[in-house]
Amino acid sequence: MDDKAKLPVTIAISGAAGQISYSLLFRLIVGDLLGLDQPIILRLLEVPQVIGQLEGVAMELEDFASPILAGLSCHSDPLEAFKDADLVFLVGARARGPGMERADLLEVNAEIFAEQGWAINAVAKRSVRVLVVGNPVNTNTLIAISNAPDLDASQFSGMTRLDHNRAVGLLARTCEKPSTAVEGVIIWGNHSTSQYPDFHHATIDGCPVVACVGQEFEASFIEIVRRRGAEVIRVRGKSSAASGAHAALCQMRDWLKGTPKGSWTSMAVVSDGSYGITPGLVFSFPVETHDGHWRIIEGLALDAASEALIKASEAELLQERDLVGHLITRPPAHHA
Amino acid sequence: MDDKAKLPVTIAISGAAGQISYSLLFRLIVGDLLGLDQPIILRLLEVPQVIGQLEGVAMELEDFASPILAGLSCHSDPLEAFKDADLVFLVGARARGPGMERADLLEVNAEIFAEQGWAINAVAKRSVRVLVVGNPVNTNTLIAISNAPDLDASQFSGMTRLDHNRAVGLLARTCEKPSTAVEGVIIWGNHSTSQYPDFHHATIDGCPVVACVGQEFEASFIEIVRRRGAEVIRVRGKSSAASGAHAALCQMRDWLKGTPKGSWTSMAVVSDGSYGITPGLVFSFPVETHDGHWRIIEGLALDAASEALIKASEAELLQERDLVGHLITRPPAHHA
Repeated sequence: MDDKAKLPVTIAISGAAGQISYSLLFRLIVGDLLGLDQPIILRLLEVPQVIGQLEGVAMELEDFASPILAGLSCHSDPLEAFKDADLVFLVGARARGPGMERADLLEVNAEIFAEQGWAINAVAKRSVRVLVVGNPVNTNTLIAISNAPDLDASQFSGMTRLDHNRAVGLLARTCEKPSTAVEGVIIWGNHSTSQYPDFHHATIDGCPVVACVGQEFEASFIEIVRRRGAEVIRVRGKSSAASGAHAALCQMRDWLKGTPKGSWTSMAVVSDGSYGITPGLVFSFPVETHDGHWRIIEGLALDAASEALIKASEAELLQERDLVGHLITRPPAHHA
Repeated sequence: MDDKAKLPVTIAISGAAGQISYSLLFRLIVGDLLGLDQPIILRLLEVPQVIGQLEGVAMELEDFASPILAGLSCHSDPLEAFKDADLVFLVGARARGPGMERADLLEVNAEIFAEQGWAINAVAKRSVRVLVVGNPVNTNTLIAISNAPDLDASQFSGMTRLDHNRAVGLLARTCEKPSTAVEGVIIWGNHSTSQYPDFHHATIDGCPVVACVGQEFEASFIEIVRRRGAEVIRVRGKSSAASGAHAALCQMRDWLKGTPKGSWTSMAVVSDGSYGITPGLVFSFPVETHDGHWRIIEGLALDAASEALIKASEAELLQERDLVGHLITRPPAHHA
């Protein structure tokens, strides 16, 4: 370890007093993202109403006596929180309140992510990587990108890794194998119940998954993964927090450190037209990553049923985009 | 890594649906205690009323797709939960309810920890290590030990590591040094406001801490550490959870893997009469650890003020012991 040689990495987190952040922040300061030889500075962003509570979280962060926590501050102004940020986790989002229509939910969040995209564009490091966790993830990501014209669209991604991890875990349990035996799962489309969890390209210990679980398992597999979030809420009485935070760490870590050669993961990224998806839409694809860059895996064969499922999720995303179109300030293009 | 060569370690956790466990469990399955090459089996214990909620936590544990989680089960019977356990975290405890006197609180928890000590004695591995986290920690530990006559008292310890970490963090911040620069802090006595956080033997970068912070800081230092838990509750609106879980991991990890040569940590362990503390009382001392064993650091010089503070915490613990004396089935002795 050569601690002294490494400059701190500045990580900004929105919604920092919420439940997902409460699971995420502490894992950051024990080195679960960047290792125990990488000092980090945490900038925590919250709405003014819960800044007090956030100060309590900051006290607990101090009480870890973490050797890598080189700085810690709480903010209610995005321009302060995102200043010089290397990495941003946009976790905070408004949940659906009583009497709120889906369109209202999209609108209120689009306003938040427009402001945050604008602030990141204004003050973050030019090499910043932004992971959007707050729902509706895909459209929030699209809005953030379109309000950050000086950054490349490829510097943003939306989180579908929780769906991906759930699918991997389910296949591993079904086949009674460790999760590391599972490769090639794909989450296509929107992080919603229209997503298409696809096991056609998945292998377990190098053999096609379908040979282990049987083709007849597909309908249940899709349904279980799509409904898992609602099921956790029903059983636990609260929405997924620790597993969401873990997925955010997994996605950011893979993005920065790279997927193993020959394998892929799922990320919601701006479409370049691959697989016929409308360019500019933020869509979950199979991607390989390397050193902060991602590339969509091309040329996977899709049967008619898969294509239909993918198109259905695209249709939902086009509809979401239309609902918030007035907040899209530029067509998001993938320049990389 | 030679995963296949390692047998799983069975870890049982009580109070598994609570907030501290919600921060602890997920860190266990990402290898933060034993490493990513050590498979673990988790046995989660809860009261029947929240077993349903615990099943929701178990779903999130599955959704990590952790490669080291080799088994997972939820229990309301301690005899099932502790069966063949290598490590036990006793996290669950009753909090003080409305109209409850301190004596009632001690009594209701003593009953819980008597039953759990008895169950651990009956079914856990003979080499088990038990870390008590639930309050009142010292007396709960005493009760558990005294109801586990076939195990050695040294196989139990109570958590004062959160106080220790808070003290280290506070000194590091005050001196603007990383926490790794701080050595030799001691938490003496009861995990309560009678504890004595002692910086007289502490160094920062090898120099006496007092030379950096000044003798006049001592009164504030003691008060801040003693009141930190209450202060977190006041500011955050909830009691410490993530920092408590982290301290539990730190204490168990140091216990198993050992403190670095020449350094020590603080643990509440059964007294052998060191520093004049009543033998058999569970008291926080400076300890060095090695491979699952601990040894009290002997012969530290104490001034009259330190001795008085230590005696005051001992007096509180003797009083607590008297209140639950009828549940002490044998005099806990340190046989090691």
